[in-house]
Amino acid sequence: MKKIINYPEDFVNESIQGLVISYPDIYKFSSETNKVLMRSKKSSNKVGLVSGGGSGHLPLFTGYIGEGLLDTCAIGNVFASPSVDEISNAIKSANSGKGVLCIYGNYGGDVMNFDMASEMLEMEDLKVESIVVADDVASASYEEKEKRRGVTGMLYVFKITGAMAETGADFNEVKRIALKTNENIRTMGIALTPTILPQAGKPTFEIGDDEMEIGMGIHGEPGIRRGKLKSADEITEELSEKLLGDINLSNGDKVSILINSLGATPHEELFIVANKFNNILNDKGIINSKSYVGRYATSMEMAGMSISILKLDDELEKLLLEDANCPFWY
Amino acid sequence: MKKIINYPEDFVNESIQGLVISYPDIYKFSSETNKVLMRSKKSSNKVGLVSGGGSGHLPLFTGYIGEGLLDTCAIGNVFASPSVDEISNAIKSANSGKGVLCIYGNYGGDVMNFDMASEMLEMEDLKVESIVVADDVASASYEEKEKRRGVTGMLYVFKITGAMAETGADFNEVKRIALKTNENIRTMGIALTPTILPQAGKPTFEIGDDEMEIGMGIHGEPGIRRGKLKSADEITEELSEKLLGDINLSNGDKVSILINSLGATPHEELFIVANKFNNILNDKGIINSKSYVGRYATSMEMAGMSISILKLDDELEKLLLEDANCPFWY
Repeated sequence: MKKIINYPEDFVNESIQGLVISYPDIYKFSSETNKVLMRSKKSSNKVGLVSGGGSGHLPLFTGYIGEGLLDTCAIGNVFASPSVDEISNAIKSANSGKGVLCIYGNYGGDVMNFDMASEMLEMEDLKVESIVVADDVASASYEEKEKRRGVTGMLYVFKITGAMAETGADFNEVKRIALKTNENIRTMGIALTPTILPQAGKPTFEIGDDEMEIGMGIHGEPGIRRGKLKSADEITEELSEKLLGDINLSNGDKVSILINSLGATPHEELFIVANKFNNILNDKGIINSKSYVGRYATSMEMAGMSISILKLDDELEKLLLEDANCPFWY
Repeated sequence: MKKIINYPEDFVNESIQGLVISYPDIYKFSSETNKVLMRSKKSSNKVGLVSGGGSGHLPLFTGYIGEGLLDTCAIGNVFASPSVDEISNAIKSANSGKGVLCIYGNYGGDVMNFDMASEMLEMEDLKVESIVVADDVASASYEEKEKRRGVTGMLYVFKITGAMAETGADFNEVKRIALKTNENIRTMGIALTPTILPQAGKPTFEIGDDEMEIGMGIHGEPGIRRGKLKSADEITEELSEKLLGDINLSNGDKVSILINSLGATPHEELFIVANKFNNILNDKGIINSKSYVGRYATSMEMAGMSISILKLDDELEKLLLEDANCPFWY
């Protein structure tokens, strides 16, 4: 296991401590636990936005706290859900009287723990609702799309809902825009190598030296098929076909795209994919009005990448392009 | 070779094409060649800032074009210097009548080609000078520090000189601040795995599964020593000792630090290093006034990281914190 770490059991604590010490103007610990982060300056009079999930995906989830994005985050161990207590603490820390909206990915443990925390807090008369993000087209059919996993498209829900919440909009308006964004995102990716969990010390899955897995999840969940590694253009075509076949887009429609590295895959390769994907959109007359290319949701040092697409209208585009104060949104 | 690419010979062209198509409001090709990038809106009445070097280090060099940073960049093949013609084109594209300052790393091919391009253009009465960055403390002793390699500390020279040039300052003032920044940066890193050159298709060096190389360069140049992989804290202590032993810092002095991944090493590990390094600075009474943690100068998918330190005074700090418009400076 070739990692720059100390004791595996300190991996999460030390990395979060490093995040807070590096950007003290953005993040701070909740007073009650070091597994809950909040903005260094708590905002008032806005709908609170909360996320959370397992560690090992930085900048997701914790990195996206900041003005114009999330208010608080509950942090689990590597690839493990945060506890009900941590989530409950995150929700309370985000509350400034206008209700709290939780936004997280569709994974069993996260859904269960966010649900339990929300139910407990509703009994204390706190308004809490959840948006469960399910954007990975490889993980279930269109007919069962509520069963899909939540992956990098989640970033778009954070960003657009964050911009709306910052205007002081009421709970229903913030929830409306979150649901609308969630309806209009699609993601699909490929994995080339596994990652290694610090405590287990071994790879999350086995894959041949000349193989790729199309549609694999960011924890190594099975994809659609495994095959020989293809060229960047062929991979991009295969992903495009699935993505564009799943969302209604025609000539003249506007989108934003996000090309994400799962960790080890470098910017050079992401841009080769971006080049091809832009050409495909161009050929169909689809207008890409804003690209994001980088490491937004990772699986530590896994090699691989995903393409996310967001269908835009004027409202979504305006909110997407608002400023946000966060070292990981660029 | 597990890379998401097409033909290896198209690697550089396609990745740069993808960069420009993804951020058209920041970058554009020079009209004369697709190996020279410039700002999408050329600035007038400022000292032009040019960099350049081999590909395979994104975001370095090309990514750092943008308002508050560089004006143009000449792009070589992977780990190879740009040609004299490309550099000459980059310098001419950056010229708006107040002279041009070139900032690049201390590598034989780059120095030779920048020198030749500058001499040619001086004969055309264009004012051109160079700042050769040499911040890697592992690559030569303090007594011979002009022989050191230029690595990630270069980013500080881009940023601070960029902010000064944006004020409309004259050539001598811009050169003064570049030299001052260059004097006050130190970098040292470790490598855990090699990278693979797309055209060669094989690793740049061999290293054992339990080994690290302290002080290795970003092209795989030999470091100070090779040994068993140590803990993050031990690695950080060893790097700190070299870095802080090379620059005069005492209780109450201010610095900025940059913890850089060479590619595959994830944010979680960088933050573990950041946590320890901040504690070391704290213990010495050195004030870290601004951290940067991420992938700033890479070697594609190499695993490893470096620590850079910049000793600040009020002038350097003010210029460092000015806004810059670039997707890779955050």
